[in-house]
Parts: sequence; C-alpha cells; structure tokens
Amino acid sequence: MAQKILILGGGFGGMFAARELRKRLGGRAEIEIINNTNYFVFQPLLPEVGAGSITAMHAVSPLRKLLRGVRVRKARISSVDTDRKVVTVFQGVQRRPTEVTYDHLVVALGQGVDLTRTPGLADHALTMKTLDDARRLRAHVLERLEHADITALPEVKREALTFCIVGAGFSGIETAGELGEMIDRALGDYPNIKRSEIRIVLIEFMGRVLAELPETLATYAQKTLEDRGFEVMLNTGVKSATGTSLETTTGEIIGTRTIVATIGNTPSPVVQEMPLETRHGRIAVNRHLQAQGAENVWSLGDCALIPMKEDATERGDFAPPTAQFAVREARCLAQNIEAAIACRPLQPFEYTSQGALASLGAHRGVAEVWGMTFRGYPAWLLWRAYYLSFLPGFRTRITVLLNWFIDGFSRSTVQIRAEDNNGARYVHYRAGDRVFEAGNRSDGVYSVISGAVELRIADPETGEERVSRIGPGEIFGDRVIFGKMQRTGTVRALENTQVLVLRREEVAKIATGFAPFRDYFQRHMKEAYGVEWNPEDGIGPDR
Amino acid sequence: MAQKILILGGGFGGMFAARELRKRLGGRAEIEIINNTNYFVFQPLLPEVGAGSITAMHAVSPLRKLLRGVRVRKARISSVDTDRKVVTVFQGVQRRPTEVTYDHLVVALGQGVDLTRTPGLADHALTMKTLDDARRLRAHVLERLEHADITALPEVKREALTFCIVGAGFSGIETAGELGEMIDRALGDYPNIKRSEIRIVLIEFMGRVLAELPETLATYAQKTLEDRGFEVMLNTGVKSATGTSLETTTGEIIGTRTIVATIGNTPSPVVQEMPLETRHGRIAVNRHLQAQGAENVWSLGDCALIPMKEDATERGDFAPPTAQFAVREARCLAQNIEAAIACRPLQPFEYTSQGALASLGAHRGVAEVWGMTFRGYPAWLLWRAYYLSFLPGFRTRITVLLNWFIDGFSRSTVQIRAEDNNGARYVHYRAGDRVFEAGNRSDGVYSVISGAVELRIADPETGEERVSRIGPGEIFGDRVIFGKMQRTGTVRALENTQVLVLRREEVAKIATGFAPFRDYFQRHMKEAYGVEWNPEDGIGPDR
Repeated sequence: MAQKILILGGGFGGMFAARELRKRLGGRAEIEIINNTNYFVFQPLLPEVGAGSITAMHAVSPLRKLLRGVRVRKARISSVDTDRKVVTVFQGVQRRPTEVTYDHLVVALGQGVDLTRTPGLADHALTMKTLDDARRLRAHVLERLEHADITALPEVKREALTFCIVGAGFSGIETAGELGEMIDRALGDYPNIKRSEIRIVLIEFMGRVLAELPETLATYAQKTLEDRGFEVMLNTGVKSATGTSLETTTGEIIGTRTIVATIGNTPSPVVQEMPLETRHGRIAVNRHLQAQGAENVWSLGDCALIPMKEDATERGDFAPPTAQFAVREARCLAQNIEAAIACRPLQPFEYTSQGALASLGAHRGVAEVWGMTFRGYPAWLLWRAYYLSFLPGFRTRITVLLNWFIDGFSRSTVQIRAEDNNGARYVHYRAGDRVFEAGNRSDGVYSVISGAVELRIADPETGEERVSRIGPGEIFGDRVIFGKMQRTGTVRALENTQVLVLRREEVAKIATGFAPFRDYFQRHMKEAYGVEWNPEDGIGPDR
Repeated sequence: MAQKILILGGGFGGMFAARELRKRLGGRAEIEIINNTNYFVFQPLLPEVGAGSITAMHAVSPLRKLLRGVRVRKARISSVDTDRKVVTVFQGVQRRPTEVTYDHLVVALGQGVDLTRTPGLADHALTMKTLDDARRLRAHVLERLEHADITALPEVKREALTFCIVGAGFSGIETAGELGEMIDRALGDYPNIKRSEIRIVLIEFMGRVLAELPETLATYAQKTLEDRGFEVMLNTGVKSATGTSLETTTGEIIGTRTIVATIGNTPSPVVQEMPLETRHGRIAVNRHLQAQGAENVWSLGDCALIPMKEDATERGDFAPPTAQFAVREARCLAQNIEAAIACRPLQPFEYTSQGALASLGAHRGVAEVWGMTFRGYPAWLLWRAYYLSFLPGFRTRITVLLNWFIDGFSRSTVQIRAEDNNGARYVHYRAGDRVFEAGNRSDGVYSVISGAVELRIADPETGEERVSRIGPGEIFGDRVIFGKMQRTGTVRALENTQVLVLRREEVAKIATGFAPFRDYFQRHMKEAYGVEWNPEDGIGPDR
C-alpha cells in the first residue's frame, strides 16, 4: 500500500520538497502538503510588494498550480502526535478537528517572529515575514505620506516622515532600499513634502550590514544607501518602542510612526510543542535531514539546524537559512525519503553556496556569484534575472515581468487598506509622552496596565485646572462611551506606561453581551457624570 | 481674492466635478477635494475585482494623479457647519480636529449601505460598494472553495458551494456573472469540487432583473445566466440571514455561507446631519444642482435628487444614479459654479442617456446604445471597450488592459486575506440551528443577546446528559477562556437567537485592563469549574 508523506509548511523547503517527492515517487506515494495560505510566497520579492512595484496577488503562486498531483490542504495545524503519526488541523470555518495521518512527516514550518523581548516593539512594530506584512507596510507608509502632505503640525509631519528599519541583514537592507525608492517616486504626488524632510534610519545590532556578504560588498551597500541619504546605525539595538518613537540602546530617542522589525526569529509554536530535539530554536537533524526524537520525521529549511559536516559546532558548519539552500535540501530530502521507503542507504546533505545577492532599490544592488563580485546596476539586473529564473510557476514569472514593466514607467500611490483590527489593543508611552489632549478625537476608553498618567481638566466655569494621577487598574477617557467624541482633558504619561485601549463601539457591544461589564460602566457613568448610559447607542461607526 | 471650492467625496460626481472646475477656473479658484480613500474607484469594475480578473491596486487611480492642481485631502469628515461655512475633518492618526473653510461646497458623497432592516443581514452579508468590499468578496469565495475541496462533511460542502446574491440590478447581475466565471475557471485547481455542486442564486424583490434596461435585454440576461446554471428568484426578498443560511420572504431556507447584498442604499451620515432638504434619502437640488436649505451648497451624483424637468414627480423625472449621468452633472455643476462666481445666470441640467450596458461574465453581455440593442459577445466587447475608454487616467487604462491580457490566459486563485476583525461580533441563529457541538474548536465565549439556546453536556463518568437552557444575559462556551480549545458540550438554538461572540484573547486582554470584567470571570471560573484563571495566560494567538 502506498506510503503517505505529509509536508507541513508551503515555503521554499516544503513546496520544493513536495515537488521533488512528486517527481521521484509519482503515484507510488500519497503526498499531501498543509499550509495556512493557499499560495507559495517568494520571500525575496516581499520588499518589492511592500514598496508596490509588484502587486501582492501577482507576486505569489497558488500552491495547487505549483503542485499538481499533490493534495493541498489550507488549514491551521493544531497539534502533531508523533506516536500515533497523526496531525490534527482545523480547516476553513469548520470547527470540527480533522485528523491527517502520515507514514513520513516533513517539517518545513520556517521561523516565526517574536518581538516581545523589547518593551513596546511587539505592539508598535511592523514585520516583514508574510505577504500580509508586506501589504500592511505599503498601506502604512502611504498613510504617513498622505498625512504628512496635509498636516499643519511640524512635529506630526516629522514623525510621519521618519522611517526606522531594525536589522540590516538581507531583509532589512532590501526593505529599506525599496522603501526609499518607493517614497522618492511617490513624492511627485505629494506637493507639500520635500525630499529633505524624509528620514530613513537603519538600526543594526552588529558591527556591519549584510553579515551574509563579503565585507567589501557590505561596505559598498552601506555607502550606497548613505549616499542616498539613509542613516545607518551600527552596534545599536532597540531599547523600547512606542507609537511615536523608538529608543536605541545608545540612548537616542527617534520620533517616528514607522518601525519595521526584521529581527526576532523564533520557532513556530507547532515545532516548539513537538517532542523533537532542538538547538537555538531549530530542529536538530542529522546529515540525512532526519529529526531526532521521533520516527520518520524529517525537517529542512529555516526551521531545521542542518550540519554540513560531522560534529558540526560553529555557526558556519550548518546550512544557512536561505532559499538557495532550502531548494537543495528539498532535493536531498526527497532522495532520502525515497531511499528510506526502498530501504536503501541515505545520502548526507552536501552543497556549497553559489553566492548571494541583495537589491538596494533604485536600480542598485550587490552580488557575489561564483567568487566574482558585482555592484550597482549590473548587480541589480543580476538580482532581478536570478530571482525571475528562480521564481516557480510560469504564470507568476509573466505577471512579475509585466508588473516590473508597468513599474518601469509609473508606480501607483493607491493606498489599499490592509487588515484592521477592531479589538482591544495595547499602547506604550514613555515618561513625558502626550497620550491625548483636550479637543482631540476620542478613539476609545483607556485603562492603565502599568505605569501612571496625569490627567488635567480645566473647569468650564472657573477655568482652574484639576490634576489627577491615574495608576494601574484605573481608566480614563471614558466620556467617549456616551458619545463624547472629543477629549475634554489632557493626559501625559508620568512614567513609562502601558495602557489598554478599547474602541467605543467595542465597549458598547461587550456591554450588550456581558452584564457585569455593562453594570460597571452604567454605575460608573452615573456616579462620575450623572449620565444614564445605554450601550445600544454606542453601536455603529465612530464619527 | 480667489474663491475656495470644497468638494466632499471622490467618486464619479466629486472627482469629475473637481476636474471640470479645475479646467474652467484654473488658478482663479482654490479647489480642494476631501475623500476617505486616496484613490478614485471606477465602480463598474468592482465586480471584476471581486472576481479577480483585475487586481485591486490596478483597478483604481490615485486622486492626486487624476487631479493635478487640486488639493487632495484624505480625511474622515466629522461635521459640516453651513452657517460658518466650515467642514471639520479628522486626518490620518492625528486626533486633533482640522477645520476646512469654503465659499462653495459640493456634496458628492454617494450612498452608503444599511442592511439593518433585515434580521441578521447586516452581520452576515457581504456588500459591493467599495474596493475593500470587492477584495473581501474574492477572499471569502476562495476560502469557501479551499474548504469545500478538503472537507469530508457533505453538508458543510453544500453550504460552502452555495452563493446567494441579493438584488438583480446592475451590481447584482454583474457580481453574480463575474463570480460564476471566477468559480468555473478556478475549478481546475480544486479536484474534489464538481461543477454540478456549485449553486449560485440571484434573489430579486421586483418582478424582473435589470430594471434599468429594456424588458427584452433583461429577459435575455436572465436566460443567459439560467442557461449557465444560475437560479433566479423574482418577486422574492430576504426575510432573515444567519452565518449558514438565508430565509426568503417566500419561506424558503437556503443553506449558504455566502450572501452578497447589493441592496439597502442609504444616505451617508454626513448628509443626514446637514440642514438640507432631502427626499427619499437624497439631497433635493434644483435644476441648477443647488441644494435647498443652505447657501452656496451644491450636490450631484447618487446623493442628489436631480429633477430633469419642472415640477418633476415621477421616478423617471429625475436623473438616474449612474456614472454616465454623474459625469454630465459634473460638467453642468462646474459651469454653474463658474457662472455663480461671475454672477451670470445658471443653466439647468439637461442630458439624455446614451444607453446602458451590463456584463454577464464569461464573455457575455447586454447593451442598449443609441436605441440599438446588443447581446452576447458583441455586447460584452462593447462593455469592455466603453468602460476602458471611460476609465480616467492613462496609467489605469494600461494596467487594466494588461490585467485583462493576463486574465486572458490564466486567472490566479491566490487567496489574499482581506481585513479581519478581532473584536466582538454578533451572530444570528434560526431556531434549531446548531451553534457548536462537543469536540469543535472553541472560537470564543458566547453571550445570549436575545432568544435562547439549549446546552447538552454528557457526564464524563456516567455518560448521562445534562441539559440546560441558556437565555438572554447568560453566557456559554466559557471554558475556552482558560485554554480549553475544544467544546465539551453541544449547543442548539431553541428560538431565533442572537449572540455576541468574544474571542479568547480579546477576553483575556480586556480582563487585563478592566478589573470588574476580570473579577467577574475569575469568580465565575472558580465557582463553575474550580479554576484559578490568570488573564495573561490567554494572551497570544489561538491554536
């Protein structure tokens, strides 16, 4: 009876593993891939999606088209039982759990992001891992330009036009480069923004950019970006982040409304919960790509720690987490699974890098291929040619080409809204920060989680100011819930403070459903303002 | 000193009014347009965006590019003071109100959607007014296909593959037609879905489709869709909607996970609050497009009721709410504002329709132009040619053409997630509906707003069933908040029931911020399950 091979994850490792396995085993094995999206993301193009030179839909290919003959299951992985050899998933809106069995399991779940170690970063930074991240970044940056063009407040404009990218590896450098080009080209549409008002800051913890490339190219890349006006801060980390600023480990505070974090890799929760031996958060596999701790479990790509020689110890002894290696790992893995099924001996993974390329945006790049180095325009052309040839799926190649063609003569500044979340959100403030001031639009009820704020309200009659301190567990800005859409008082953070913000309609909805919540607010509004509050009045969009 | 002309709304009426005014007055007037997006949506292409033949970004044009010399302000309109001649807006994340003054105000805010008159419809139907609506529809339909392809449950599959479109005017017919083509073409990627399993239902309250077109063409359109397997229900309205079904006024219950409502036009809140005379929810203007009730206020497009002759009374006596008319109204309006400024006499709006076109998808259409009627392929070609020529902005024309070209040989089934909302949501059930059953994934805590449900839990030891009735104000499914991600009991609706659902993480976040909410749940969990609940544990994505 045909062996069932189940692949978790549809990135470079997983998608190419599925392809190779299908090629080698054809109908002799049942191959299934589980992924949380129905498409394959060509990671190297994400910065271009974020900068709008390629539309999101045209930058990715449907897994079903790339993997004919492979069963594609768009689902969320809930748990893996390596004893029963069963993976439990939830698919679609369907809430009944679905069990998928396997004979061989391939774990290719890549890496997630965890920014929680830096105060405020997880709540205020954008990331660049997924297609949605890239779309969100583009919408966010255009929103800043729209705002900067029409605001009359210099401070707001300065913050809106300052963009911080954290991490200067491939992802950080390419994101910064593409972003810079996008903004340059957009300025024609924004008559009130001067080129000199744009500030792009690259913050790198290590002593150099592009650690993956030779020193000379890294230096060239840094110089190219600096010549274009970018600031590069080396040996610098992020100490904390808020909605309006970033504090570096060197003590500098940068006023900004845009923080893009390309750091903080972490294993996916599914991997963490599997009974597999891991090191540095990656699955420890042998040179045959077999995981330790469970039977018939294999792993490749960013989530696996793959030794390139016996008793590997140094960072350099292991396969780097790049697309180039993942694709080769996929070949070796398919070969070994076929061998394992046929009880033939397995081969160790061996591969030497063909080189590395990075785009710097604005038709500039750096590349090292087969020992030769390229820079500037040739390197950029090489970059595009290489990735175009590398891009799986004929259709995607065509559409990416056409997008580049369109982009050649003009780039759209259309701002398509990215996901928005109406739920509760945490916001961080630094001591002294303004939370809001009298006359501001009310965006919700605030509750202090930690720290403390100071509320000043001028008495309508006497005009004298009442000052009160609000600490953990206390709420403020609560007039909004009975429809007062403008703030009556001014609030500043007395310490580093974290608050929870609940939109007006959210408060009203929850009050219609949860009596204690409603009772609390009704009592509170009665005592504090003598108002009878009816939650139903709060339902409907804010104005 | 130059007159300041302020235009509210960047749709057909507003955008073309701004263009005409700029053309006529050049630098002699200061022209500003305020819109809540930074782009102009070519409404007739929305169904194609919803069906993925054109990507969202390529279907629209930046207002700033279309309106050189006009100040473009992306902002939310808060209020209009026609005495002080001031419009108050909120722009960007900036929470300070901004006041914009005017000498002449042009109101071109179109129409909004209000589905609240039909129980459940507002909470469970998709709409087709905005670009985001179109993107959401596409993502929603692809999600249904992905799910239908892999589910083992026939009932779930049937609901997933049934699509209801409410309203069979231009928007409804074109949406249905494009949707049908999209699904047909996508099926190649979904091996487990048979063409015969797809059900598309058009529900129209009136006795015929496409009321805007001659009977003969409407009949042809209906027949074309029926030949392609669509069901058309005439003289039928919607009585109620839930997440899994739609009930018609004729008493039929259709199991479906997709309801698209193209009905329910309503004036925008801003218009409602202005001191203007309105009729049938539209601003009553005179034949010169001047609004009654305020000085120097003009209106055009869908939000205006424009008489085409003296003492107009019949529906036919007023300008129809179509793009074609809006564009001509814009010309007349610009001419009249120029005349008003120069104290010259005003001209009445006069225009006779050149005809009407509708696409039926799959290379079929209907058209009536200059008295001639076209149908089938020629009409579809005419439709594309007409709208392409009508499309403002050279770049957009090119990109739309290239999209059509790409679409010619293949259409992507990539599902890009549309907005998602983590906030509280209302869900409606019909008496007898299953809410959830034991083993299901827990999606949140439920609270009964109206109606009643029945909860059955089998005792783990004895296996005997405890049955309880849960009514308004009571909650269920609360084990989820201490991390029990699978349901232990089965719940059915005893009556027509509305519940509020709060996601697990949302409950936890709110509990960290609002003590009474936390205390209530902590007490409740202790009493009901003897568990000490710590909200912090509930923060992080569900698994």
